[in-house]
Amino acid sequence: MSKDISVVIAGPRGKMGKEAVKLVEQTEGMKLSAVIDRQYNQQKLSDLEGFSADAVIFTSPEECFSTVKPDVLVDLTTPETGYIHAKTALQNGVRPVIGTTGFTKEELEELKELSKENQLGTIIAPNFAIGAILMMKFSQMAAKYFEDVEIIEMHHDQKLDAPSGTGLKTAEMIQKQRASKQQGHPDEKETIEGARGGDIDGIRIHSVRLPGLVAHQQVMFGGEGQLLTIKHDSHDRGSFMSGVKLCIHTIMDLKELIYGVENIID
Amino acid sequence: MSKDISVVIAGPRGKMGKEAVKLVEQTEGMKLSAVIDRQYNQQKLSDLEGFSADAVIFTSPEECFSTVKPDVLVDLTTPETGYIHAKTALQNGVRPVIGTTGFTKEELEELKELSKENQLGTIIAPNFAIGAILMMKFSQMAAKYFEDVEIIEMHHDQKLDAPSGTGLKTAEMIQKQRASKQQGHPDEKETIEGARGGDIDGIRIHSVRLPGLVAHQQVMFGGEGQLLTIKHDSHDRGSFMSGVKLCIHTIMDLKELIYGVENIID
Amino acid sequence: MSKDISVVIAGPRGKMGKEAVKLVEQTEGMKLSAVIDRQYNQQKLSDLEGFSADAVIFTSPEECFSTVKPDVLVDLTTPETGYIHAKTALQNGVRPVIGTTGFTKEELEELKELSKENQLGTIIAPNFAIGAILMMKFSQMAAKYFEDVEIIEMHHDQKLDAPSGTGLKTAEMIQKQRASKQQGHPDEKETIEGARGGDIDGIRIHSVRLPGLVAHQQVMFGGEGQLLTIKHDSHDRGSFMSGVKLCIHTIMDLKELIYGVENIID
Amino acid sequence: MSKDISVVIAGPRGKMGKEAVKLVEQTEGMKLSAVIDRQYNQQKLSDLEGFSADAVIFTSPEECFSTVKPDVLVDLTTPETGYIHAKTALQNGVRPVIGTTGFTKEELEELKELSKENQLGTIIAPNFAIGAILMMKFSQMAAKYFEDVEIIEMHHDQKLDAPSGTGLKTAEMIQKQRASKQQGHPDEKETIEGARGGDIDGIRIHSVRLPGLVAHQQVMFGGEGQLLTIKHDSHDRGSFMSGVKLCIHTIMDLKELIYGVENIID
Repeated sequence: MSKDISVVIAGPRGKMGKEAVKLVEQTEGMKLSAVIDRQYNQQKLSDLEGFSADAVIFTSPEECFSTVKPDVLVDLTTPETGYIHAKTALQNGVRPVIGTTGFTKEELEELKELSKENQLGTIIAPNFAIGAILMMKFSQMAAKYFEDVEIIEMHHDQKLDAPSGTGLKTAEMIQKQRASKQQGHPDEKETIEGARGGDIDGIRIHSVRLPGLVAHQQVMFGGEGQLLTIKHDSHDRGSFMSGVKLCIHTIMDLKELIYGVENIID
Repeated sequence: MSKDISVVIAGPRGKMGKEAVKLVEQTEGMKLSAVIDRQYNQQKLSDLEGFSADAVIFTSPEECFSTVKPDVLVDLTTPETGYIHAKTALQNGVRPVIGTTGFTKEELEELKELSKENQLGTIIAPNFAIGAILMMKFSQMAAKYFEDVEIIEMHHDQKLDAPSGTGLKTAEMIQKQRASKQQGHPDEKETIEGARGGDIDGIRIHSVRLPGLVAHQQVMFGGEGQLLTIKHDSHDRGSFMSGVKLCIHTIMDLKELIYGVENIID
Repeated sequence: MSKDISVVIAGPRGKMGKEAVKLVEQTEGMKLSAVIDRQYNQQKLSDLEGFSADAVIFTSPEECFSTVKPDVLVDLTTPETGYIHAKTALQNGVRPVIGTTGFTKEELEELKELSKENQLGTIIAPNFAIGAILMMKFSQMAAKYFEDVEIIEMHHDQKLDAPSGTGLKTAEMIQKQRASKQQGHPDEKETIEGARGGDIDGIRIHSVRLPGLVAHQQVMFGGEGQLLTIKHDSHDRGSFMSGVKLCIHTIMDLKELIYGVENIID
Repeated sequence: MSKDISVVIAGPRGKMGKEAVKLVEQTEGMKLSAVIDRQYNQQKLSDLEGFSADAVIFTSPEECFSTVKPDVLVDLTTPETGYIHAKTALQNGVRPVIGTTGFTKEELEELKELSKENQLGTIIAPNFAIGAILMMKFSQMAAKYFEDVEIIEMHHDQKLDAPSGTGLKTAEMIQKQRASKQQGHPDEKETIEGARGGDIDGIRIHSVRLPGLVAHQQVMFGGEGQLLTIKHDSHDRGSFMSGVKLCIHTIMDLKELIYGVENIID
């Protein structure tokens, strides 16, 4: 008799999926009971190159859930597939952790109802990186006590968009907490355009792009005589896995749908 | 008719007191109604060098409170005097913000009762630096999600003790949140003694002392592929004043004693 | 018989002057022989509030130099006065360290000739902060080995101009060392204007302005898999004094005019 | 007719060797003419998994050099093999860049003589990471102007030794530049042993070990009112390649043996 949490992973061959397979295999108290893939039905995962796990591959989620009866589904596929998998999981008594975004309002509403009806937790997680989530959460908290803040996000020089998504989201979360404020001296002058960075409702945001950088962000709060800085550095996909792990553990005690890993963190 | 919060400051000539006088004078919604000092009874503060405020000086707190009927007392004296002032304040309908530490359990208990009885807030604040308090609070929160942490505190080279008080307190707060853990590789070797820093229940703490530094601390949490750093820099006493201001505002809505500014922050 | 370097300071009552007086008094191997001021002729510096040094005050530089016969003049006045003082010093066998800028080409040429003629060193120092000078020098050296660089300069929020003078000067020095290069991805897009900072011949520069900051700059060089960062923090005028000290020592061995403290550093 | 520098790499299947193969293939002005390996004689490198280069494999360096007549040998094997390869290269008119350490004095002396005799450059490079080398070089330069310095080196928590080799080497280079100095307050007390770090002739060194870190070091110089920090972060082997590239370019103009990449940097 085992009390391990029984996990099924959908999308095991993607970048995130591979990491998740490793995570579940290596974490005490969890076991990988099966995987869901578009192909290789009834083969073993270990038959595919790069995998050592013995888990059976299913192409049909219904069949998978009714045969294996897992506790948790971790879905790392696409929004469309993710929605169908989540629905099927809830209808079969399985708690879905969905690592994609892009659901419509109606889809979300439906999953919410299904979750409640079946008294089963559901977690929709657009971002699994706990470090980044804590950075944003702490920034929002700090904004209550510091009026002035600037964001510096730094990425490798192959990144196309500036600022980064995380930078924008952080600014948005800070904005919700504070009154709009035009920062800096009212008469300040840029002798070189852009030096003072991008302006989001008074919050300045700076995007650094250099080879040798991976993905970094620091949020700096300034007050009289002091500075509070919250910084996150991430350099590989492994950084997402602590979030996946947390979701698997937390969902066992949930009876409703939660949107965003930040909402299972306290 | 004015809705300004009426404030009395005890110890106006000390370093912190001077800053607090400036703060109350300059903050909209507050007024400095009087000060309490050991001497200069009934003179005006502006008679003393370095002050511009017109507030009257009292040597007797009873007389001050009964004459002026302030809303709040901010006490920046010594533990002994602070205790007497707090007691007298509560007995006269005044809410005390006490910026000292070192009270006995009995004294604290007594103030707690008096506070409750009179339905008046009391704040005992060993540390007013909101930035430092947030750093500690965030560190404690992060420790729930990251097992591994090291603390680097950096001060000017005239500091005698290592680690700093804030460093020790941070480690203590993290300790409460996590299971004891021996960090680093089990077989790691120091070829130079002390390189790996001080060890507090597995948390490593490093004290840097250099001219040119003032008071800084960074708390680094490491997880697979990521790092979360929370850093506080403070370079003058002004950094305490945002905490004093917060206490004055918050105490108006309290009806009991609160120990530690961290407990009025959410 | 003493071998102390005999120093005269012009402009002892200014902010920099006060620090320089303290420096010369406290440095072994130097003595403050006199000061030059616009007033208080023949009084002692210690008669003025805030000074303890016994040095005699002269209003006439000629009289000062012929009476005291110092080794070095440290001038912390204005460009106009600085030029006259430097000239008079060289004509009287005194080596001038001039802490101002803004000389005309003709003036500089004249001082250069006088210096050579008299075989006496002259140092013109627009910036005495050795830390900042080393930061710029190292940045220029590093630019030879790293093609990609961004500058982040951070100052208090009362600063009017962005970028800072030091930021611009650093970019200029780096430019001299490297071929023009448009950094970042060729197709990068700013979704918020200014996010990528100011552009100086491809070098991106970012200006952060927050209360709680003083004067800071970091120069980041990125290469494949690595990052080299050179950072300078300064938080008071004391940071200039190590440069003044170095100039006083170095000038004793010079026989010509040097422009810029960076040129006496190796 | 091509002016590309013709390069042979010894040890192409090692971690460094693989990177070097890629580097030479991708760098304009260089071509990979052959490789030297212990096996696979006369096969093509592209026959082995993970390689795309067409270069022929030789097991005999003599045969390789006499057949291919390359300009430069880049050796990434072991000290024993490296010594033999270097000697053979010089005897065959090929300039050796040797990326190993551990030669005896006699071996070094012999290579030095051979180099001079044949008027061919030789570079022995215990460390190819230019960023790290610049950090050390700048630190040594800064030590001339700042008496007080502390080193913080930070690595992943699987590292066994503390401090790191680079940390020790940096301290040693600083030591050569400055007089011995006991830093910090003479009466400072460690309430937790090791908090002040390791002590190398007065220089304090701190070793941080956390998952999520890769290889980082910062050298902090403190002076009155200011701080100068030199920092290097490296997160993969690619960081060595800029050093290999520099060596290949530089060696073409050398006529003697150089020990250490720091000595071809100016």
